[in-house]
Amino acid sequence: MKCRVCRGPAVIDLPRHNANFCPEHFTRFCRDQVERAISDFDMVQPEDRILVAVSGGKDSLAVWDLLLGLGYAADGLYIGLGIGDYSDTSGGYARRFAQQHAEPRGAKLIEIDLVDDYGYDIPGGSRAARRTPCSACGLSKRHLFDRAALDGGYDVLVTGHNLDDEAAVLFGNTLRWDVEYLARQLPVLPARDGFPKKVKPLVRLTEREMAAWCIVRGIDYLVDECPMALGNRHLAYKEALNAIEQQSPGSKAAFYLNFLENMAPLLTGRTAAATDSLQSCGSCGAPTTGDLCAFCRVAEKARAHEPVPVELVLGKGRGRR
Amino acid sequence: MKCRVCRGPAVIDLPRHNANFCPEHFTRFCRDQVERAISDFDMVQPEDRILVAVSGGKDSLAVWDLLLGLGYAADGLYIGLGIGDYSDTSGGYARRFAQQHAEPRGAKLIEIDLVDDYGYDIPGGSRAARRTPCSACGLSKRHLFDRAALDGGYDVLVTGHNLDDEAAVLFGNTLRWDVEYLARQLPVLPARDGFPKKVKPLVRLTEREMAAWCIVRGIDYLVDECPMALGNRHLAYKEALNAIEQQSPGSKAAFYLNFLENMAPLLTGRTAAATDSLQSCGSCGAPTTGDLCAFCRVAEKARAHEPVPVELVLGKGRGRR
Repeated sequence: MKCRVCRGPAVIDLPRHNANFCPEHFTRFCRDQVERAISDFDMVQPEDRILVAVSGGKDSLAVWDLLLGLGYAADGLYIGLGIGDYSDTSGGYARRFAQQHAEPRGAKLIEIDLVDDYGYDIPGGSRAARRTPCSACGLSKRHLFDRAALDGGYDVLVTGHNLDDEAAVLFGNTLRWDVEYLARQLPVLPARDGFPKKVKPLVRLTEREMAAWCIVRGIDYLVDECPMALGNRHLAYKEALNAIEQQSPGSKAAFYLNFLENMAPLLTGRTAAATDSLQSCGSCGAPTTGDLCAFCRVAEKARAHEPVPVELVLGKGRGRR
Repeated sequence: MKCRVCRGPAVIDLPRHNANFCPEHFTRFCRDQVERAISDFDMVQPEDRILVAVSGGKDSLAVWDLLLGLGYAADGLYIGLGIGDYSDTSGGYARRFAQQHAEPRGAKLIEIDLVDDYGYDIPGGSRAARRTPCSACGLSKRHLFDRAALDGGYDVLVTGHNLDDEAAVLFGNTLRWDVEYLARQLPVLPARDGFPKKVKPLVRLTEREMAAWCIVRGIDYLVDECPMALGNRHLAYKEALNAIEQQSPGSKAAFYLNFLENMAPLLTGRTAAATDSLQSCGSCGAPTTGDLCAFCRVAEKARAHEPVPVELVLGKGRGRR
């Protein structure tokens, strides 16, 4: 197996590009894909201050590393979610990456702890608010990332969603033909009143490629899936698409990228236009349709309950993004 | 396992309806689903003369049986495609059904033979025209069914496409976000100049349900898939959807029916508007964009070649519908 560019020993084969790459040209390939996504979708400007949502997994560490390597000013934000050992371990990976790869390049890791700072954890919040763990987790993270990006004066919030993630969410929304969700499944959400601009620079790269990126670049990351997400539909959608991809390499990228090109333009304006009726949360000031925002409602309910062991709320599935 | 309606012994479970049925109430269930499809999509009128495209498989025999049972005047049309033993066997099933179930109810089976009447078979046509077998077969059948429906003065042409078929084709078109193909994937295509009205009354019923219908009703049918379709993408799409359906019963029906309800209306008018530029085929008079229609081009090329053994063109995949 030889590198397509230099004919040296290759370390990865990419069937959808009909190519093998050595470490050097694989990293160049990944950088090219990120630069192309940034440019095609107008994600960030050279002078932007970027905040990266960091989990300690391969995707968030890789996107942070890639952006720093491309010369962007990008800090990280890690949120301790209180999901037992999983959270303790993931925080360790985030901190190690920051020390070894980010701080030497002038970037810092910000930390928020759900238990210390807000008095609840995801298992407790899920239980108290009668939401699936993935739903309670998603809304908590979205709220805190948005707020940190705005409070910190960042121009854009970056998440590590890769092609597999986006294709699986697209597949789920397509299986239901949920037009409002389809209409807003874009790699860039512009800033609007009370929300920062959000972008996904990894949409042209797969899960497997991001794992390879971390290995090639010497980045240690948390390999385990979150224990609360096991068995959810999102993973079943990924498996179904992987079976198709195996038979016809390139299908997954075509599914997601053709959606953006052919269908998304037809859906412009079909999102629920709830912005008109937003007001400020009575507790934290975040934009919301009710008196209290969803985050403050979950936090309030959770603080009123006893903590619940993680095992009781495991594996209840993940909500739509 | 008890029938949901009468509590008698059930013979089939339908997870997506969370129900089991005895033979009597299963047949009633199927009739209800067909009546609902006919009524929801305005497929046929009580006085219409119907032509059913009959292959000898479960779906085409079941839809013919169902329409006759609902009191419609429905003749069948069988086309001998010259695919070796497969065609000989399938013709036998079509004729037996006609004798036992259709003729006693006043309906007849019309027959066309590709070799005898047009001088070529599907393997030869595929090879000569450099098209996949499924592509050569599809265009030949469409041409001959359309022509027979018009020449025979039928009001509507019925095909036995079931929910699994339609969901798999929809999945394939969605994977590519092929907007023109998506826009015309409807259970009813209205008549237009040179083409009959075409409808699919089985879109609310699955492959498995149609097999059960034939068993319950004592209809012998050809179980084998066409040998030329083996390994095509269409079957891979069915498998992927079946894996999702297994995990979440009802997903497949929601995928197809929500498409019709939520997305199809947004795509109206996005089909390639080629009708303006249609002219008459110089050989057969059918509407076409060229001088000769695709059918006459394939037939002409095939007749100019030696016959080719079936084995040489096996398993090349099926085209988009």
